[in-house]
Amino acid sequence: MRWIRFSAGGRTAYGILEGDRIAEVAGDPFRGYEATPRRHDLAAVKIEVPVIPPTFYAAGLNYVEHVKEGAARRGEVPNIPAKPDMGYRAANALIAHGETVVIPADATEKVHYEGELVAVVGRKAKHLTEEDALSCLLGWTIGNDVSERTWQKSDRTFWRSKNTDTFKPMGPWVETDLDLDAAETIVRLNGEVRTRFATNHMLFGVARFIATMTRNITLHPGDVIWMGTDGVSPDLKHGDVVDIEITGIGHLTNPFIREGA
Amino acid sequence: MRWIRFSAGGRTAYGILEGDRIAEVAGDPFRGYEATPRRHDLAAVKIEVPVIPPTFYAAGLNYVEHVKEGAARRGEVPNIPAKPDMGYRAANALIAHGETVVIPADATEKVHYEGELVAVVGRKAKHLTEEDALSCLLGWTIGNDVSERTWQKSDRTFWRSKNTDTFKPMGPWVETDLDLDAAETIVRLNGEVRTRFATNHMLFGVARFIATMTRNITLHPGDVIWMGTDGVSPDLKHGDVVDIEITGIGHLTNPFIREGA
Repeated sequence: MRWIRFSAGGRTAYGILEGDRIAEVAGDPFRGYEATPRRHDLAAVKIEVPVIPPTFYAAGLNYVEHVKEGAARRGEVPNIPAKPDMGYRAANALIAHGETVVIPADATEKVHYEGELVAVVGRKAKHLTEEDALSCLLGWTIGNDVSERTWQKSDRTFWRSKNTDTFKPMGPWVETDLDLDAAETIVRLNGEVRTRFATNHMLFGVARFIATMTRNITLHPGDVIWMGTDGVSPDLKHGDVVDIEITGIGHLTNPFIREGA
Repeated sequence: MRWIRFSAGGRTAYGILEGDRIAEVAGDPFRGYEATPRRHDLAAVKIEVPVIPPTFYAAGLNYVEHVKEGAARRGEVPNIPAKPDMGYRAANALIAHGETVVIPADATEKVHYEGELVAVVGRKAKHLTEEDALSCLLGWTIGNDVSERTWQKSDRTFWRSKNTDTFKPMGPWVETDLDLDAAETIVRLNGEVRTRFATNHMLFGVARFIATMTRNITLHPGDVIWMGTDGVSPDLKHGDVVDIEITGIGHLTNPFIREGA
């Protein structure tokens, strides 16, 4: 089942996507909902960010090749994480499928994509075991953890390198049924495949992260957990279009422009 | 003026605190409100966290003594930040004035308080100058950035050291009128003054941080910005009570217990 958040006729609502038709609901999948008679064509609505998360988690370094390539780029020895320590991103930066990433005028040319699986929490949860961990999820979506590498290296935190407004595309919807082991992440730049990896070939899997986190932290409905990326991105330029596909979920597509270009 | 968020009679509402009486409003100070005839005694309500922030910012290292003492504790050379790079905390960890900080059973004895000024954003804002920066604020409250120093050193992120459930007391209310230059931060442990510093003696002031942040980031109503702390905390034990006073705002008081003690 696919949950979509959308705007039409001046209202924003949740709906269930079946093919290219949306069955609008009253309420939402987190606190409860009821069916309505309202139907929409997918092509006729504006797709919104699937949820504004109360807390926005991000695994960061969670695929071996990405860690090695990042270290090589910086002339450092790769520091493979020994345990699943979760990081954070910020809601100000979220944009929806189809919206535009705006590279600030003072950014360097080192602006990269990171195609990521996103786990969407559906219910309040603490003290989950690895076996039970995925039971707290509503489903899965896609994120692009856009990063300005020069700032990432020069700043003490990720506030600017990863959380500049528009740097966190997420969507297009939440898929509740996903065969994670079969999923592949495919990133296309202007239609050409540039990065491709098995989505679940993580250093630490989703269940391991959730079991670890919920020893200390309560997860809340709508929290999102971005699971990291593999491979490396070319430098993105004004006019580029980045499409992140995760097979079984869909495509997250966003144009990039440079401010003042 | 003091904005308080509280629960009484099974409902949670905002009100304006005058002395020890609350004038309840309909709505909230961020999106708009109307007066109501309802009045409450402060002593008869449960004080709630003043706002659940869309994004929870924290300056981290922002007072010279705190940076030096932290470095000395770790046997490192102090690394005084050269520019205002904002960090993050997480909403799961928030608790209100009077609520209990629960130290997990597996935490070490190195659990510390950090008494902090908190700036509360009142309106959407981007591209503010230092001169205009404070115009986006609703007012000021108090935060205790409780930290487990062993985890802070061993983990790749602050997920556990600073964002364990209950580790972020905030409150008791939002004071809209504060003479920041006259304010003093006074931390009492079990009634005895243990830390005392001029609240505004920061490396980078609130206006500097906001002007820097809003070059890249849109601030939203309800966002909170924790401004860092000075001095050093003793190790906190089961049964301790930490009271953080910022003169002109009030007192944020929380008991600490150790899980299983």
